[in-house]
Amino acid sequence: MNQAVTACVIIIGNEILSGRTQDINLNHIASTLGGWGIQVHHARVIPDDEDIIVNTINEVRKTYDYVFTTGGIGPTHDDITAVCVAKAFDVPIIQHPDIAERIRQRPAPDDIMASRLLMARVPEGAGLIDNPSGGPQGFAMENVYVMAGIPRVMQAMLSTLEGKLESGFVVRSQTVRAYTGESSIADALARIQNDFPSVDIGSYPFLREERYGTHLVIRGADTSVLATVADAVMDAVRAIGEEPEDLGLDADA
Amino acid sequence: MNQAVTACVIIIGNEILSGRTQDINLNHIASTLGGWGIQVHHARVIPDDEDIIVNTINEVRKTYDYVFTTGGIGPTHDDITAVCVAKAFDVPIIQHPDIAERIRQRPAPDDIMASRLLMARVPEGAGLIDNPSGGPQGFAMENVYVMAGIPRVMQAMLSTLEGKLESGFVVRSQTVRAYTGESSIADALARIQNDFPSVDIGSYPFLREERYGTHLVIRGADTSVLATVADAVMDAVRAIGEEPEDLGLDADA
Repeated sequence: MNQAVTACVIIIGNEILSGRTQDINLNHIASTLGGWGIQVHHARVIPDDEDIIVNTINEVRKTYDYVFTTGGIGPTHDDITAVCVAKAFDVPIIQHPDIAERIRQRPAPDDIMASRLLMARVPEGAGLIDNPSGGPQGFAMENVYVMAGIPRVMQAMLSTLEGKLESGFVVRSQTVRAYTGESSIADALARIQNDFPSVDIGSYPFLREERYGTHLVIRGADTSVLATVADAVMDAVRAIGEEPEDLGLDADA
Repeated sequence: MNQAVTACVIIIGNEILSGRTQDINLNHIASTLGGWGIQVHHARVIPDDEDIIVNTINEVRKTYDYVFTTGGIGPTHDDITAVCVAKAFDVPIIQHPDIAERIRQRPAPDDIMASRLLMARVPEGAGLIDNPSGGPQGFAMENVYVMAGIPRVMQAMLSTLEGKLESGFVVRSQTVRAYTGESSIADALARIQNDFPSVDIGSYPFLREERYGTHLVIRGADTSVLATVADAVMDAVRAIGEEPEDLGLDADA
C-alpha cells in the first residue's frame, strides 16, 4: 500500500468571500485529485490581500504534499497571486518566455499587450502548467500549483497534470442508501466504525420525494474491506426493518 | 461610519473535501452576513477530525469578530462538532434542556431516542440558535455560532440571527459590464483604483453567448463614491470604443 499523499486548496478571491460568486473549483479539484490518489485534507478561501496570500502559502506548503491555488492570475491590478507566490518563496518575479510567446501570438496595441504580458509573470524557477484552453499557462513553484480562477480554464490546466504528480493510495467509497433516520442506526454505525478503524464511515441525511433517508458512505483504500463493512451496514439497516440499497463503489448519491 | 465587523466561516466535513458534496453554505452565509454589515474575510474547509476542529476554532475565534461553523451536529459517531467546541472553550459538554425537550416531542424507542438526544449536546454556557425548520437547535458559544450542515436547515438557523448580531458598515457593490478583454482596460482600472483607495475594484472576465466580457465590480461602503468610481470606469470603457452597461447597485451579474 502506498502512503497517503495530501493536498491543500487555496481559493483566492474577494468575489467568493463576498458571496457574489459560488465557488465550484474546490469540488472539481478534490474529486479529480482524489481519483489520482491525492487527498484534499484542507481548503481555504482568502481575500486578494498580499500579506494574507503570502502567509497562507508559506503556512500550508510545509504541511501538505501539494498546494493548489485558483484565482488572481489575470492581467488587472487585483491579480496579485504570481507576485505573492514569488514573495512567499523569496525569489524575483520574471517574465516567462514561453507564456509571453503564447500571449504575443494574438496581436494587440502596445499598451494592451503590456497588460496582457502581466499574465506571463512567474516566480523565478517556476515550471509551467499547460493550458489547453488556449490562454496563458499557469505555473508551479516547488509543490505549489498556481491555476486560473475561471472554472473552465482551471479544469483545463488541472487536466494536464494527470500522471505527473506523486500519488498515494486512492480512497474509494461504497455507499449504502437507507430510508431511515440517522438516529435509528447511529448505535450500530458507531459499533461498526469501531470494529473497522481502517475505514471512515460517514452518514449524510437527505430528503428526497418527501422521504427522509441517509446515505451511509464507507471510505477506504481497500475495496474488499469496503465490501465487508458495507455488508455489516446493510445488516444493521435490515435489523431495524428497512431494506437498504447498495449503490456500489464511488457512487454519486 | 461604523467599524468593519468580520467573520470566518468553517465548513466541517469530509464529504466536502472528498468532492462528494458541493458546498453551498459559504456562499449563502457570506451574502446573508454581508447584507447585515458583517464581512466574511476568511473561510476554511476542514475534515471531521477532533484536533483540527479544536485548533481551527481556537485560532480563528481570536482573529475575527464572529465564527460560523456548519456541519457535524447530527446524531451519528461522525458528528463531533459540539464536543470539539466544548474542548476548544475548555468547558464540559452538557445536554441542553430546551433542545432535549424539542427532540422528545417526537416519540421513539429508547435506543433511538438516546441517539437523537446526542443532538442536544452543547458546551456548558452556550446559548441556542433557533431552528425554524423544526429540528434540534444550533448553539452559540461566545462569538462561535454552530449550525447544521444541511443547507435548508443551516439557512433556517441563520435567518433567526438577523438583527441579533453586532453589525458594521455594509459593503455595497456597483457593477459595470463591458464587452472587452480585461487587458484593454487594465491600465485605466489600475489608475482609478489608485485614485480611489476607499473602494475595491475587481475585474471578473466572462464568456456569454460566445462573447468575451468583463464585469467590473466596485465595492465600498459609500454609494456616492461608488457612483463616482462607476462613472470613471464607464468613461474608461468608452475611451477604448466600447459602450459599457451600468448594472447598478448589488447586481447579480
